[in-house]
Amino acid sequence: MNIAVDAMGGDYAPEVVVQGAIQASAESGIDITLVGDKGAISEELARHGDMTRRINVHHCEEIISMEEPPLRAVRRKKDSSINIAFDLLCRGEADAVVSAGNSGATMAAGILTLGKIAHVERPALACIIPGNQGSVVLIDVGGNIDCRPLHILQFGIMASAFAINCLGMKDPKVGLLNIGKEPGKGNEQARLAYDLLQDSDLNFVGNVEGQDIFTGCVQIVVCDGFVGNVALKLAEGMALTVTRRMKEDMVSSLTNEEQSLIGDRFDGEYEKVLDYAKYGGVPILGINGVGIVCHGDSSARAIKNAVIMAHDYTGRDLPDKIAVHLAGFGSG
Amino acid sequence: MNIAVDAMGGDYAPEVVVQGAIQASAESGIDITLVGDKGAISEELARHGDMTRRINVHHCEEIISMEEPPLRAVRRKKDSSINIAFDLLCRGEADAVVSAGNSGATMAAGILTLGKIAHVERPALACIIPGNQGSVVLIDVGGNIDCRPLHILQFGIMASAFAINCLGMKDPKVGLLNIGKEPGKGNEQARLAYDLLQDSDLNFVGNVEGQDIFTGCVQIVVCDGFVGNVALKLAEGMALTVTRRMKEDMVSSLTNEEQSLIGDRFDGEYEKVLDYAKYGGVPILGINGVGIVCHGDSSARAIKNAVIMAHDYTGRDLPDKIAVHLAGFGSG
Repeated sequence: MNIAVDAMGGDYAPEVVVQGAIQASAESGIDITLVGDKGAISEELARHGDMTRRINVHHCEEIISMEEPPLRAVRRKKDSSINIAFDLLCRGEADAVVSAGNSGATMAAGILTLGKIAHVERPALACIIPGNQGSVVLIDVGGNIDCRPLHILQFGIMASAFAINCLGMKDPKVGLLNIGKEPGKGNEQARLAYDLLQDSDLNFVGNVEGQDIFTGCVQIVVCDGFVGNVALKLAEGMALTVTRRMKEDMVSSLTNEEQSLIGDRFDGEYEKVLDYAKYGGVPILGINGVGIVCHGDSSARAIKNAVIMAHDYTGRDLPDKIAVHLAGFGSG
Repeated sequence: MNIAVDAMGGDYAPEVVVQGAIQASAESGIDITLVGDKGAISEELARHGDMTRRINVHHCEEIISMEEPPLRAVRRKKDSSINIAFDLLCRGEADAVVSAGNSGATMAAGILTLGKIAHVERPALACIIPGNQGSVVLIDVGGNIDCRPLHILQFGIMASAFAINCLGMKDPKVGLLNIGKEPGKGNEQARLAYDLLQDSDLNFVGNVEGQDIFTGCVQIVVCDGFVGNVALKLAEGMALTVTRRMKEDMVSSLTNEEQSLIGDRFDGEYEKVLDYAKYGGVPILGINGVGIVCHGDSSARAIKNAVIMAHDYTGRDLPDKIAVHLAGFGSG
């Protein structure tokens, strides 16, 4: 097993990405190929000595920036780190790809290099949210805007295959993100998607609302990529806001004496609740291989967890399982 | 000044609604007309003795339930509490309406009874969110789905008039809720709305993302009612989830001795952070009068605050101010 990591992708690349890769490799014994500028990567590696034994570097010249139009950049910059990472996977020299770079470009490179799974219309980004009763998969979180109802059905089918095979769920419940629970609610896209989901073999339980992403009443929430992206970023911003305020309020309710007694223990708790980084990254579902997209501002810890996630999903035949689900659930 | 309160609207009506109205009246000296079943309302009023001096009851027979299709219910049930409440406003017997009932029906009754402000295409629900740097108005949070770009522009104009006149803001910054900051991001609706907002006289600062609802980089966030409704419900669910987890984590980081020292002080803080109820309700912007929609599961405190909010907005000539803004900002 070898994970190709786009060393040039992300706001703090290559330093933070290399650090995260080193941590994943050292802690979990994962072989990693760092793809990018050899000079810059080697400089960072040199600081970590023996921890880099399982890491090698694949040099390439080009970088796709966060601002570039994804498809055009992927087509033009053949020697970019993200394209080369997927090339390695395509040639069998890597088993999965992790990138914190331009997420649209990462998806486009994955689709163009590996191809889509048979019958998949639109690969999608599936975010794993820490709900009150375990993980919840929110799909799509930004891979596709202006989705058709069939795409939303396929998101549910792909996410079910993923949840069963990679997250160990049994017959996960699927909900359609909508503005009310009753059938017939929502815009035309939602109403038509409802009918398709209802007629499928998925364990579809009906419409769910924003708050239900956390309640555990479903394990998979399907939606258009526009809505999903807004929802995900809102949840992240909200976690930050609420935890900060709550900590301030709690600390201010303590006397000086109590504060010195408790010290900075709350800081740790605060971080823990806040820490979406432990989820590491967002898998691209629907391509012929394992690709993980990370936040542009990922910490080394987030990169580490994304690499471990990628390693964990490798060898589970996820693309085949998705293809089987798609064929079996009548949307192929 | 007299506020008409739909006593039959909401999950815990009439009891909780009547309690909230009594609290608002007693604490803030507001005259209130409770609209609904006289017998049931009087029973609750009887428990509160002298606190009900400023409250009278307007009897009506019908109730629109939470599940009924809004427009049809409003048209058929002429004697429903929500229709009668707006009738009182229309006849000058009340100055504002508050309802925790079927929100679609409340909007429909407001529009049909009071009429839309000149040039307004679609009245909308404007939620006031407690951001990190003061209030942020999120519009539309569910009044309209499948919005056209012009509607989204008008949401921005109406919300600006509202923020200036009712919230005391000066030249509030307006952001378009989107999936990336750069111009050109998003679906077709968002791209076209961006252009209209850019060409308007609003203080439009461009696209914002989900997390920006809290950061204070803008004071008004405009979006389609589908996206806004999902976002609002997600934020509410998230506040509940994060605060609960954080409190548990913090308490578990304390020794038994520390816990007994601190007692249940954290419970109060927890509630405080969580308490969206203090915002009470969501004004309907674009109708010829003041109408406030409350959550179906509103507490007495939420109803109280909505009544105080309604009272506060009354007499500010909000419909006229919105009309002037619409004419002046070139979308009339």
